[in-house]
Amino acid sequence: MLIVQKYGGTSVGDLERIQNVADRVARTAKEGNDVVVVVSAMSGETNKLLGYAEHFSADPVREEVDMLLSSGERVTAALLSIALNEMGIKAESMSGRRAGIVTDTVHTRARIEHIDPAPMRRALDAGKVVVVAGFQGVDAEGRVTTLGRGGSDLSAVAIAGALGADLCEIYTDVDGIYTTDPRIEPKAKKLERISYDEMLELASLGAKVLQNRSVELAKKLDVNLVTRSSFSDAPGTLITKEENIMEKPLVSGIALDRNQARVSLSGVVDRPGIASDIFGALAENNVNIDMIIQTLGHDGTTDLDFTVPTNELVDAKKVVDAFVANNEIKEASYDENISKVSIVGVGMKSHTGVAAKAFATMAAENINIMMISTSEIKVSMVIDEKYAELAVRALHDAYELDK
Amino acid sequence: MLIVQKYGGTSVGDLERIQNVADRVARTAKEGNDVVVVVSAMSGETNKLLGYAEHFSADPVREEVDMLLSSGERVTAALLSIALNEMGIKAESMSGRRAGIVTDTVHTRARIEHIDPAPMRRALDAGKVVVVAGFQGVDAEGRVTTLGRGGSDLSAVAIAGALGADLCEIYTDVDGIYTTDPRIEPKAKKLERISYDEMLELASLGAKVLQNRSVELAKKLDVNLVTRSSFSDAPGTLITKEENIMEKPLVSGIALDRNQARVSLSGVVDRPGIASDIFGALAENNVNIDMIIQTLGHDGTTDLDFTVPTNELVDAKKVVDAFVANNEIKEASYDENISKVSIVGVGMKSHTGVAAKAFATMAAENINIMMISTSEIKVSMVIDEKYAELAVRALHDAYELDK
Repeated sequence: MLIVQKYGGTSVGDLERIQNVADRVARTAKEGNDVVVVVSAMSGETNKLLGYAEHFSADPVREEVDMLLSSGERVTAALLSIALNEMGIKAESMSGRRAGIVTDTVHTRARIEHIDPAPMRRALDAGKVVVVAGFQGVDAEGRVTTLGRGGSDLSAVAIAGALGADLCEIYTDVDGIYTTDPRIEPKAKKLERISYDEMLELASLGAKVLQNRSVELAKKLDVNLVTRSSFSDAPGTLITKEENIMEKPLVSGIALDRNQARVSLSGVVDRPGIASDIFGALAENNVNIDMIIQTLGHDGTTDLDFTVPTNELVDAKKVVDAFVANNEIKEASYDENISKVSIVGVGMKSHTGVAAKAFATMAAENINIMMISTSEIKVSMVIDEKYAELAVRALHDAYELDK
Repeated sequence: MLIVQKYGGTSVGDLERIQNVADRVARTAKEGNDVVVVVSAMSGETNKLLGYAEHFSADPVREEVDMLLSSGERVTAALLSIALNEMGIKAESMSGRRAGIVTDTVHTRARIEHIDPAPMRRALDAGKVVVVAGFQGVDAEGRVTTLGRGGSDLSAVAIAGALGADLCEIYTDVDGIYTTDPRIEPKAKKLERISYDEMLELASLGAKVLQNRSVELAKKLDVNLVTRSSFSDAPGTLITKEENIMEKPLVSGIALDRNQARVSLSGVVDRPGIASDIFGALAENNVNIDMIIQTLGHDGTTDLDFTVPTNELVDAKKVVDAFVANNEIKEASYDENISKVSIVGVGMKSHTGVAAKAFATMAAENINIMMISTSEIKVSMVIDEKYAELAVRALHDAYELDK
């Protein structure tokens, strides 16, 4: 098998941990696999370098920030390769450039445009483990770029795609994706497999492990992603395409999002285009809208409810207040004390009654559902924040996710 | 003018010092000069990284040591560029690769093979200061290499040569080359100018400032080298070709080498090729011979005296003892308590009596001269180590170097 393994900052946090990683890579190679390793900077290193930069400038030029930060991953890559060679495993470290990773020119948050896998392929063909400095590439001009938050994961997924790897393992200090947050429901179980789309909907459950950018890229490139812990041998969670999941569970997991606020507009003048004006103005001010519900009012006006991320509520208020001042909205109210609970599962596509069971569960617990939205594989409900944990546990029970 | 400035590890030893360097570079640029800056790693950084490598291996693979160490200069280059941009000076950092520095494949002590100055030229033409990570290049395969001790100086000299720079300034914590070691003779004066050849002969006087490799390269590429201090505005010493030195002093400086030992062979069998056999065997064992004196003995045998570096004396003894065992040498004796004092000056070429004055000075101080060797621009004398300082001061006085 050709396996890409990515080790994050805590997994390579000090020299002992780098040796642990070397041991794991060596084992994988000795089992007969071709291995490409993608590494992050040692934890703390990136922040140290950023601190240096801020000594000179509150807003350091981004091209140079990239040059500065890219050194951290190079150090880890070289050290890991030294450790592997010492253990008798032939290894070669590569910068992002040498690994053929070409990006656009948006420094500090560049996007990978393409990968020339030839140098990696040559090293693999020579029987070497390839150790790639993650998080970095070069633009068409040859200047070093970095990929922003979660960048090393993107490097790993893109490399796995370019090489047609069988697996892309993302090692962190968390051992996989759970049916729900184990801090809320201790009976939560680790998932063996989950589809890309479910993972994207369950983002909050994977927040500490994977960014959606990486899952989206894995889906696009058809890369089998595994999230596992570098501190144990427990198998992780495989994130793959739906076809690869034989027994499709009705519901895979319960996600909770506390960072939503509700905006309720009542008495919205019913003129053509008013909704588009309101949401257009919100978009212009970079406010992200999640759920929307429109109901016809009693007097020819409409009521409009929607949710926004809590930290964008201030901006949303400014926009809405302008419409109130123009008498196009009678009244606006805001509620930060809400939570969004979501039930996610590909099985919903072919089974009815999943949503009904959710509503019945809420009713049995006397939890009022303020808003509902559904997609092919998801049912989301907005409820009073104080019932959030109760709702998660009740739903986890109702769909027997602990079984 | 196009000026290349190189700042060593102590000159960029911490963030305040990097800001000082930025101030100096900014001043040079604002005076209307095109500036290329070559920087070392912050002092201590390279040793820290080497320590990391040694955690994993007593003899880490050299390719990876280069990958590891090359990150240090990149960090300094990026930080200096950030500081310059913040001051309103457009600047761009470049790795050795981007600066077009191509080396052979001898990792950890590579030789520069050629430089493609196009990227630096483009940046200069765009009105930018170019900040190059010193000490590094890439081999023809595209792998990072480092240049060994004094490598950043070599980078600077080679870049100055490739760009046809007017000046290559080497900044350290020493403000130039002196007529002799000021710790021995406080009246030593800083030299304004000195020729490449004199500098090479006076190596010990520049030991803390410049390695001979850099001076040789500057001579080959016809680069005007200046050594100055980054901690003062004092003008440094210009090292240039002889034609650029108008008033050629008879003697430019007095060098002292304490790390020589004398090997005296008496009763060497007088067969053809015996000297060649002895020196051949020494060369095979990597013993460097400096001075040689051969004298005809009383009984058809010869006496052979030569000097070797003190740290090679053990190896020299082994070789010589084998000849003694073969009865080709009657007796061998060794003396570590010697020093070599040298008088260097291009003026000697056209003036007689320089050597005679040296011998007279030694005689006046009752210092016995054990061995003498001369070249066009140098007179070297081996004397008892205990008279070394006295000899230096007496010669400094005799040639009026304090005037």
